[in-house]
Amino acid sequence: MKDDVALLDSGLIVTTDTLVEGVHFLSADPLDTVGQKLVRVNVSDCIAKGALPHQALFNLVWPTNRSDDDLHALITGLSSDLRAFDIDLIGGDTTSSPDRLVLSLTLLGRSLSDHVPRRGNACEGDDIWVTGTIGHGVAGLRAIERNLESEFPQSVLHYRVPQLPSVEVAHLIAQHANASADISDGLIADLANICDASQCGATIKLSDIPLVQNVSSLDSRSVDLLSGGDEYQCLFTAPQSQRGAIEATARQANLAVTCIGCCEAGTGVNVLDANGMPIKLLKTGWEHGGNS
Amino acid sequence: MKDDVALLDSGLIVTTDTLVEGVHFLSADPLDTVGQKLVRVNVSDCIAKGALPHQALFNLVWPTNRSDDDLHALITGLSSDLRAFDIDLIGGDTTSSPDRLVLSLTLLGRSLSDHVPRRGNACEGDDIWVTGTIGHGVAGLRAIERNLESEFPQSVLHYRVPQLPSVEVAHLIAQHANASADISDGLIADLANICDASQCGATIKLSDIPLVQNVSSLDSRSVDLLSGGDEYQCLFTAPQSQRGAIEATARQANLAVTCIGCCEAGTGVNVLDANGMPIKLLKTGWEHGGNS
Repeated sequence: MKDDVALLDSGLIVTTDTLVEGVHFLSADPLDTVGQKLVRVNVSDCIAKGALPHQALFNLVWPTNRSDDDLHALITGLSSDLRAFDIDLIGGDTTSSPDRLVLSLTLLGRSLSDHVPRRGNACEGDDIWVTGTIGHGVAGLRAIERNLESEFPQSVLHYRVPQLPSVEVAHLIAQHANASADISDGLIADLANICDASQCGATIKLSDIPLVQNVSSLDSRSVDLLSGGDEYQCLFTAPQSQRGAIEATARQANLAVTCIGCCEAGTGVNVLDANGMPIKLLKTGWEHGGNS
Repeated sequence: MKDDVALLDSGLIVTTDTLVEGVHFLSADPLDTVGQKLVRVNVSDCIAKGALPHQALFNLVWPTNRSDDDLHALITGLSSDLRAFDIDLIGGDTTSSPDRLVLSLTLLGRSLSDHVPRRGNACEGDDIWVTGTIGHGVAGLRAIERNLESEFPQSVLHYRVPQLPSVEVAHLIAQHANASADISDGLIADLANICDASQCGATIKLSDIPLVQNVSSLDSRSVDLLSGGDEYQCLFTAPQSQRGAIEATARQANLAVTCIGCCEAGTGVNVLDANGMPIKLLKTGWEHGGNS
C-alpha cells in the first residue's frame, strides 16, 4: 500500500486508521481525548490528500472492565470532533472484549481536485513543504512519561489530541501539490517514503524546519523531534513555480506552511545543518507496531 | 443505527464488521478460515442489501505472540476470498498488540437498484423469505465445543467459513425486496429488528423454515436453531404480488429461497407450530457482545 488513502469512484477518497490502547494511546489517557484522536488521525490523512472529510464508520472493541463513564467520555469526544469537522457517522460495528480498547475509524472524504496527490508523484526540483510546527508529538509523550505535563501543556495537548492544520490546507494541497502525506510516522520517515515511492531524493535544511522550541529539558534533540511520530501535520511537494502562489494563499488564509528543502536526483533524505554540512541520522523515524 | 449498511453517493453502499478472537471466532480456529469469515460476514451484509461486493479496506491488530505461519494463513484465507468475491483491497491499517487478534473489514459494494431495501421498509401483507438452510451456525459451534467435528463437518464448515447464498440473491433482493437483513444475530432476532423498524408484526410457521436436519444429538432444539447467530443467510420481505416472480427466478438460477410467513399488523414475531398453535420462545436471539 503506497498511500494512506484510496480513491473511489466519483471523487470520494477513503482512509482508515486503528488505535490500540497501550500502542497508540496510553491506558490512562482521558477517553474523550482518545475519541478525538481517532477522528483526527483520519482527518489528517484526508487533509493531506487535498480532500474534505465527509462521512465515517466507527468500529469499537470495548473492554468489559471499563465503566459506563469511560464509554460516555469516549463517545462525547468522538461526537464533538465529528461535529467539528462536519462528518456524518453513517455506520460501524460495536463489540466487546475482555482486554484492551481497540478503535477504528474509516473516513470518506470529498477530493477537491481531479488528481489526488499520491506519495509517488514528487518530481526532482519540487519544493518540500510542511504545515505547522514539528515535534509536539514526541515532546508531549516524553512530558507525560516524565510527569512534566504541567510544564509542557501545549505539547501534551498535541500528543493526546492532534492539533491539525486548518482544513484550508486541503485546498492548498489540492491546487498545488505533486506528492503529499501526513506526518504520522515522523518527518524523516514520511519524507523518505515519498522519496522511495517517487524514485527521487530530498535535501532539507534543519534550520528551515519549524521545530517546537524550549523542550531541551525533555532531552529532545532535533533528530528526535524530526523522527518522532504522532505529528499529524502535512508534508507535501510542489513545483518551484508554485512557490509564490502557495505563500500568497498561506498569507491570505493565515496558514502556517514552511518550505524546508527540495527534491533532487538520487535516493533518500539528506539533512543539512545551518552551515550546509550533512547531519547523520541515527534513526529515521518511528514505525507504528507495538514495540515503540 | 437501523441498518448494517449505509448508502453513499453514486450507488455505492458501505458496511463494516469487526471480528474479535474469543468472541467471534475461537482462538484455535485455523486462521485461513478466520480470514475467510471476515470477508464473508461483510459480503453477507452486502448481498442482503441487493449489492455486489466491490472494494475493501482491511484493519488488522496482530498479536505479537502469533507466528509468521499464522499470519501467512490469515492472509491466504483473506486473499483467496477477496479474489473469489471479486473484491479489490484498496487500503487498510496494520498494527500489533500484546493480546488478542482483532480484524475489521470495511466493504464497499455497488447497489443493484436505486432503492436499497432498509430494515424499516417491510409492509403489512409482505411475504417473509429466507435463503439457504438455517441452524448450521449454532450446530457447528456446538459440534466444535463437544469435540464432534467429524460427525458434523457441514455445520462446522458453516460456522468457521460462512457458506453464503449465491451473489445472484443480490439481484433477487434488489428487484423484489421491501426490507432485508442478513441473519447474523439469529433468525428471530433479525426478523424482530425488521418488525420493530417497520412498525409491523410477523408470523412464521416452524414447519416452513428450512432448518438443518439430523442435529438432535447436539441438543439443538428448533428454538435454538432459530435463535442462533452466525447464520449469514438473507432474510427479506417482498409483496405477495412478487411471489411468482421470485419463485421463477430462484428456480431458474437454482437459488434456495423459502417463504416462511408474512408480515401483519401488530408487533413482534409469532412462531406457529405445524398445527397453527403459537410457540413460546424463551429467548429471541443472540446479541454479539462478548458474554454469549
